[in-house]
Amino acid sequence: MKRILFFFLVLGPFIALGQTKTRKGPLYKDPLQSVEVRVKDLLSRMTLQEKLAQMQDLSASEIMVSDAIDPVKMDQKLKGKSFGVFEGMGLTVAQYAKVINTLQEYMVKKTRLGIPVLTSSEALHGCVHGGATVYPQAIALGSTFNPALVNQMTQTITKELKAQGITQVLSPDLDLARELRWGRVEETYGEDPYLTSRMGVAFTKGFTENNIICTPKHFAAHGTPRGGLNLASVAGGERELRSIYLKPFEAVIKEAQPLSIMNAYSSYDGVPMAASHQVLTDILRKELGFRGYVYSDWGAVEMLYSFQRTAKGPAEAALQAVKAGLDLEVWSDCFEKLDSLVKAGTLPVRYIDTAVSRILSAKFAIGLFEHPYPNLKGLTSDIHTPQSVQLALDIARESIVLLKNEDHLLPLKGSIRSIAVIGPNADHVQFGDYSWTNDNRHGITPLQGIQALAGNKIQINHAKGCDTWSQNREGFSAAVAAASKSDVAVVFVGSSSASPGYPHPDATSGEGYDLSDLKLPGVQEDLVKAIKQTGKPVVVVLVSGKPFAIPWIKENIPAIVGQWYPGEQGGTAIAEVLFGPANGGINPSGKLNVSFPQSVGHLPVFYNYYPSDNGYYNKRGSLNSPGKDYVFSSPDPLWAFGTGLSYTSFEYQEMELSKTSFSAGETCHIKLRVKNTGAMDGKEVVQLYVRDKVSSVATPVKELKRFEKVFIKKGATATVQFDLPMKELALYNADMKRVVEAGEFELQAGTASDQIKLVKTIEVKDKL
Amino acid sequence: MKRILFFFLVLGPFIALGQTKTRKGPLYKDPLQSVEVRVKDLLSRMTLQEKLAQMQDLSASEIMVSDAIDPVKMDQKLKGKSFGVFEGMGLTVAQYAKVINTLQEYMVKKTRLGIPVLTSSEALHGCVHGGATVYPQAIALGSTFNPALVNQMTQTITKELKAQGITQVLSPDLDLARELRWGRVEETYGEDPYLTSRMGVAFTKGFTENNIICTPKHFAAHGTPRGGLNLASVAGGERELRSIYLKPFEAVIKEAQPLSIMNAYSSYDGVPMAASHQVLTDILRKELGFRGYVYSDWGAVEMLYSFQRTAKGPAEAALQAVKAGLDLEVWSDCFEKLDSLVKAGTLPVRYIDTAVSRILSAKFAIGLFEHPYPNLKGLTSDIHTPQSVQLALDIARESIVLLKNEDHLLPLKGSIRSIAVIGPNADHVQFGDYSWTNDNRHGITPLQGIQALAGNKIQINHAKGCDTWSQNREGFSAAVAAASKSDVAVVFVGSSSASPGYPHPDATSGEGYDLSDLKLPGVQEDLVKAIKQTGKPVVVVLVSGKPFAIPWIKENIPAIVGQWYPGEQGGTAIAEVLFGPANGGINPSGKLNVSFPQSVGHLPVFYNYYPSDNGYYNKRGSLNSPGKDYVFSSPDPLWAFGTGLSYTSFEYQEMELSKTSFSAGETCHIKLRVKNTGAMDGKEVVQLYVRDKVSSVATPVKELKRFEKVFIKKGATATVQFDLPMKELALYNADMKRVVEAGEFELQAGTASDQIKLVKTIEVKDKL
Repeated sequence: MKRILFFFLVLGPFIALGQTKTRKGPLYKDPLQSVEVRVKDLLSRMTLQEKLAQMQDLSASEIMVSDAIDPVKMDQKLKGKSFGVFEGMGLTVAQYAKVINTLQEYMVKKTRLGIPVLTSSEALHGCVHGGATVYPQAIALGSTFNPALVNQMTQTITKELKAQGITQVLSPDLDLARELRWGRVEETYGEDPYLTSRMGVAFTKGFTENNIICTPKHFAAHGTPRGGLNLASVAGGERELRSIYLKPFEAVIKEAQPLSIMNAYSSYDGVPMAASHQVLTDILRKELGFRGYVYSDWGAVEMLYSFQRTAKGPAEAALQAVKAGLDLEVWSDCFEKLDSLVKAGTLPVRYIDTAVSRILSAKFAIGLFEHPYPNLKGLTSDIHTPQSVQLALDIARESIVLLKNEDHLLPLKGSIRSIAVIGPNADHVQFGDYSWTNDNRHGITPLQGIQALAGNKIQINHAKGCDTWSQNREGFSAAVAAASKSDVAVVFVGSSSASPGYPHPDATSGEGYDLSDLKLPGVQEDLVKAIKQTGKPVVVVLVSGKPFAIPWIKENIPAIVGQWYPGEQGGTAIAEVLFGPANGGINPSGKLNVSFPQSVGHLPVFYNYYPSDNGYYNKRGSLNSPGKDYVFSSPDPLWAFGTGLSYTSFEYQEMELSKTSFSAGETCHIKLRVKNTGAMDGKEVVQLYVRDKVSSVATPVKELKRFEKVFIKKGATATVQFDLPMKELALYNADMKRVVEAGEFELQAGTASDQIKLVKTIEVKDKL
Repeated sequence: MKRILFFFLVLGPFIALGQTKTRKGPLYKDPLQSVEVRVKDLLSRMTLQEKLAQMQDLSASEIMVSDAIDPVKMDQKLKGKSFGVFEGMGLTVAQYAKVINTLQEYMVKKTRLGIPVLTSSEALHGCVHGGATVYPQAIALGSTFNPALVNQMTQTITKELKAQGITQVLSPDLDLARELRWGRVEETYGEDPYLTSRMGVAFTKGFTENNIICTPKHFAAHGTPRGGLNLASVAGGERELRSIYLKPFEAVIKEAQPLSIMNAYSSYDGVPMAASHQVLTDILRKELGFRGYVYSDWGAVEMLYSFQRTAKGPAEAALQAVKAGLDLEVWSDCFEKLDSLVKAGTLPVRYIDTAVSRILSAKFAIGLFEHPYPNLKGLTSDIHTPQSVQLALDIARESIVLLKNEDHLLPLKGSIRSIAVIGPNADHVQFGDYSWTNDNRHGITPLQGIQALAGNKIQINHAKGCDTWSQNREGFSAAVAAASKSDVAVVFVGSSSASPGYPHPDATSGEGYDLSDLKLPGVQEDLVKAIKQTGKPVVVVLVSGKPFAIPWIKENIPAIVGQWYPGEQGGTAIAEVLFGPANGGINPSGKLNVSFPQSVGHLPVFYNYYPSDNGYYNKRGSLNSPGKDYVFSSPDPLWAFGTGLSYTSFEYQEMELSKTSFSAGETCHIKLRVKNTGAMDGKEVVQLYVRDKVSSVATPVKELKRFEKVFIKKGATATVQFDLPMKELALYNADMKRVVEAGEFELQAGTASDQIKLVKTIEVKDKL
């Protein structure tokens, strides 16, 4: 008994001291421990209340007054609790940094366990806080066909985020632009699963490798809402889900390991994604191997009862979401009911522990406990730097798509003495949604870009003409006058964007701004017609968040340029394209990442349709009707996916294959030789499509499998090499098994999905 | 040994004679035997070649020259073989009767086993052979909301068929009109699964009870082809398939036991229906209990390789189809490969035996062996009888939908002295597709109908104005002149139809005639505007195969009538509606079976959408955009499903329920009291919708569950009773189980899907 007492009273303190020496506090605070050990330790110390707070968000308005934290308000809200994630929007970079600094101090010092909060923001195409660099909108990132640039972009944005202490971004958007009425088309990388995969991986890696959590969204199949209406249900089967919608998520999860993912608002075949165990658990975790936490789209849990009507009220909504595998609720308060659900035994506490473990794992994994604070000195050195501005310009340049260029109207000749710069988007920056602002603090408008590049040499006559949406034609006459006195007229038409919470009366694109027609909104097309009437050469530049149906413009205007929303340097980039290399500009190299429809009634228009989906009767001549397939027209696009001209020309000379017969486990090595046969240097996006000639279930007429953007000097020939494992030719068969089927596949190389230049057929000998 | 010899040599012949005495020939020819016994017996006698011929069709062109059978050609083709089914189109009733008579004589007398052939024809809205009665097109049958009339129709058509020896009709069409660009919308009963079920059952029973085989089509989910293009794939999941598309087939199979069914051309979630074992066997036979044979849509087997690209060639196509459960190939020749597939052991012969047994079963079941020949005396007594003509008129009357009637412009006052009858469909019969002819042999045009009803009292000024599709405005001035000198102008606009094999340059509707826009084709709307400009009261009558998007007409024209394609008596019926009971006419009673969209860009527009599918943002006021939900407009229909006015008015007075709380196995008894509160007798379609207030998966905002058309005298009150078993409130849950979920359901009674007058809530207490 004495010896025992001796042990405790005399040696005890030394042992304790020794322990203190090695880990200086609780296990979870020791960065040398594994994430797993730290999570387990921390979880064991948490009360149910503390756990549930980790599954909820804290929003800026709950703790702030005006642009800063109000300590009293914060104290009242937090009461010593740490939350899972914090979000604040609409601030400047400096304001947000200060808010986060104060908030994390509270978390670390004034909560019982000192758990820092994840700090989230949007970063679809740049940090959205005032003062940060605005890059081209996602749809323009897609049209660069240059993932390396996108990776540089997120690497660069990281610095702006770190200066503010932002640890999680609610990007990338991996939805596919298959329903063009939808306002969020501009947030996607386009219509193609493979292009979206490559862009999504490049985007996500740039952040995750710098310990910024990405939140790919919207999981899953959000991009084809019924009627094009945001949040509406998506009709589709399991095969389409797996073959199309899941592909980009699979690539990003496997290659870039994001620590979070955001559910879709929509239902798929009747099951809301926020309550789908099949999608959020069986597929996401068990099949795709996702290891992060599921972040709810804002209000998505509440919508289970208020909108989807699959839950009676907040408690049932919370129960459905948590059981499905949704870990953290944002923007609504259903998870406040979890407390009583757990206490009543309705929800076993293991569900809570699982969700909290995932959230804490993400916090540990990015070193949040070690580095919860903003890098405040970055506020002066890392925000809107010359490098970031240059990168924004480089991306804007590569995203511009030359759609038509009759008689080489572009680039504009050095001999022109005057130019009319016309249209609602001529002197307006269009950043796109998830940017919060269309103000012109940093943004360069097309007019400004043209003035800077050519203003000292030629006369610039500017007139707005009309706005982007109304029926007001009062400005037409001034615009016609400007064109009449100029050698050439460039008309900037398109759309304006807004986002929920940041509405704008001009908006015709962006989240919540869906269109029932795809004609150019308002009187813009009539403005183009009026300018064309002057007899002057006309260039139309489409500055927009989505493809518009512009058959008249395609037919009648000699030069057409698609620019999407080009970010803050867009005005410079478009000026450079208009004037070309000989006049201080550049040669365009973007390609369409979304097909253009002839009209809204021609939707869907994506290139990767099934063989049965482009009409039957009239193509075969068995009916004597005035049109083709549709009575009055064909189902073909105005411009197909992959389209994009250059000021030079390229010749696809040769496709060389390592062999032509493969077992399903092998890889085909492909060499393509492309020559620049034109008069200037240029970049070409070499595209490789595959057509499965016969498949046991329907497969698309072609699918993009590889692409590479290459710079080729005038007269030179580039060799592009692709490795294509046969396993990438897999389909989901009648039993929903992923298999590579024996048979022939056509490899199609070309400059657009409908401009295939070289074709070779390979054979897969065995099934896999 | 001697005794055994004695037995064979002496008694044997007597035994054989005894057998001959009781059954006079082979077992399969004995009508007293069961179908099963007869099939088994016959099958055991057949060679493989004879079996395979039963799985193939014989078409008229293979044995005919001009309008009659050529004996030499027939001999060469048949070579003593009996085929499964014969089809011939484009003949007169008398010609077809003669052809069948000759053909069946050959089958009975010149083939080894004397198996008669099934003789098929189209009968979507009447027998299609020249001289037979032409009833209103299927979409007009739907708008009667009167299944009893449809049942009378098929009972009556039966006589015309029997006179010709026709034993199988390729109807009804149970597709749902959920994609209005599709040319075959006119062949459907509308957009609603329940209405389609009731019409389909009534239609099918009228034939099957008279031993005519029906072929419900297109199994399954054919009505929503991608892009509205005929034969294109359908996107959808298993829940949507079961909850929407299968419903009418389930009802028809269970209640009317059709002996055949036709597969859809399309694929669903990537699997072509012609090769879907899940759909053609697992669902069709095992779940729905179908006992007949699967008849391929024409050429659908060949399309597996030529169009869907899921088979390498004819042999693989045949193999896929037969293994999936398709029994008889029509119009293509892939099944000719079955011989070698069986001989090579690739296809076990049991597949052949199964298919042939199903086909023979159908033949025995309708008594074909006993009655293979036409009822030739019916050719004089049963074709186009006064009774059938009267029935065609009755149906046409009930199908007319009064859409708008400002200031009671209709019925036209007795005081008018002149009427302008204008428009491309004013003096033209529009029968719709699957009628082969728009000639005017029996058809009464609107102009003729008006002349007959009112020509002796008022001046009729007719002018065509324009055609149904072109840009030709040459007729406008004559039409304006006609209107200017009349008291009122009625403008008949709409569409013209054609079918494959029977093309027509005017066609803008019908199979293969899909539209990329839903505005009135050609310059028809401009014609209406020009007539409106005269200042005269204008009535627009839409004679069409589908809803058109006519917001300007809805806004500006005081009276609008929807007529669909009204059959041969359509001109009389519309005249009666225009002039009303006081002038020898009638009171309209049709209801919209398809919702009208504001534009093609507002599709889909069906009333039974999910709660999430009619917009979110602007209805809730959270966005400051110019429109509602769509930027420039709402997603609401121009006119919703169920809409239809009367010249009288109805008041929904009371909904009485047997009780309000039910177990899932019980039935709710509903009594509705509806009063005719207007100035004349009339018919009302009393509609009962159910809204599942909360469901574990998305369910429509409302679904039609019961309807009844009742005649109510002026001032009288009708009581309509509905029995609604709770099991009809079932849904397919997350595990794809069909369950009735506990919870509240709203019973909504009203005069249209968006004009609900009485609401009561019931509760289901337990799950089922």
